[in-house]
Amino acid sequence: MSSPERDTRREIIETAEGFFRQIGYQKTTVADIAKSLRMSPANVYRFFDSKKAINEAVAERAMVELEAAVHEIAARKRPAAERLREVLLASHRLNAARYVEHHHLHEMFACAMEESWDVVRGHIERYDAVLDALIREGVAGGEFTVAEPALATRCVRTAFVRYLHPLLMSQCAALPSPDAEAMIDFILIGLGHRPKGAA
Amino acid sequence: MSSPERDTRREIIETAEGFFRQIGYQKTTVADIAKSLRMSPANVYRFFDSKKAINEAVAERAMVELEAAVHEIAARKRPAAERLREVLLASHRLNAARYVEHHHLHEMFACAMEESWDVVRGHIERYDAVLDALIREGVAGGEFTVAEPALATRCVRTAFVRYLHPLLMSQCAALPSPDAEAMIDFILIGLGHRPKGAA
Repeated sequence: MSSPERDTRREIIETAEGFFRQIGYQKTTVADIAKSLRMSPANVYRFFDSKKAINEAVAERAMVELEAAVHEIAARKRPAAERLREVLLASHRLNAARYVEHHHLHEMFACAMEESWDVVRGHIERYDAVLDALIREGVAGGEFTVAEPALATRCVRTAFVRYLHPLLMSQCAALPSPDAEAMIDFILIGLGHRPKGAA
Repeated sequence: MSSPERDTRREIIETAEGFFRQIGYQKTTVADIAKSLRMSPANVYRFFDSKKAINEAVAERAMVELEAAVHEIAARKRPAAERLREVLLASHRLNAARYVEHHHLHEMFACAMEESWDVVRGHIERYDAVLDALIREGVAGGEFTVAEPALATRCVRTAFVRYLHPLLMSQCAALPSPDAEAMIDFILIGLGHRPKGAA
């Protein structure tokens, strides 16, 4: 794809995300997006063959942004347990900023969960790969005691879902929940981690 | 309330739940429920002043049923860790049977989460009380090592939400997840439990 085409694609995605934030996915039309960009709907359809395809691109952009942030943290020179904590915290904060502060974006996410399962699944597989590498490093370095790192990875991601899933973050806000840091303490113990100073 | 009135109330709740299973909460009308019971809508409204109130009663019945099951398990004469495992497993199985096998009931549950928050909150508080008592017993008996049982209770419930929450059970079904038993193993380690035979 040539550079001007890439720019147009990016503009469509950003404009669509703006509409999804303001009025929600369902109410946004391709015509709204086109008008806001001063182009014809037909031109938008040259880049995305449906509103669903636009939604997929918006969801994917959010996921790729989160993946970039966690890759940067995972590459730091720090104990694996500290990096795992930072990866989970950063993911929670990014999703809270995106979905809790802009509750209309739930619709976009719910829609991706329903209609664009491959995009969601790909993201979760890449996210698990980051957790998995950190857990294996922690086991190799004696920080964690885990018999099956692949299983432990899924336990960690599953135990933390309340802090990552847009709908749960909203639904559980009014319930007595541990804060994300306390939940990560619990998860690290589940990985056999002993905090400094503990026996 | 006299006994015939209690029976009528129960019949309305059971009939409503049947409709919610078959066609969902949104499509069910008070007139449908009344007709099926060969009574007038006005008579149904003598017992419940709105469809929302009927939904609350249906949701509450499901929650009370789950609470009765976990109380029975918690009262057994067995190690606390075994009872905690059984409590979580039984809760998962009851909710899976109710909501995954009857996906229309999601609507009823989602609606209760939105509109009848006090009912949901009361249930979660009573559920937490069962977990809390088991964790305190386990700490007293040397099975668990936990500094703050109240916080640990919330960590356990939060770590297990994927196995209890109707929407998540469906959404996560296609993802690589630990089975409920493996997740409970992870949670027990988080409570400082050492499996038999471990150092």
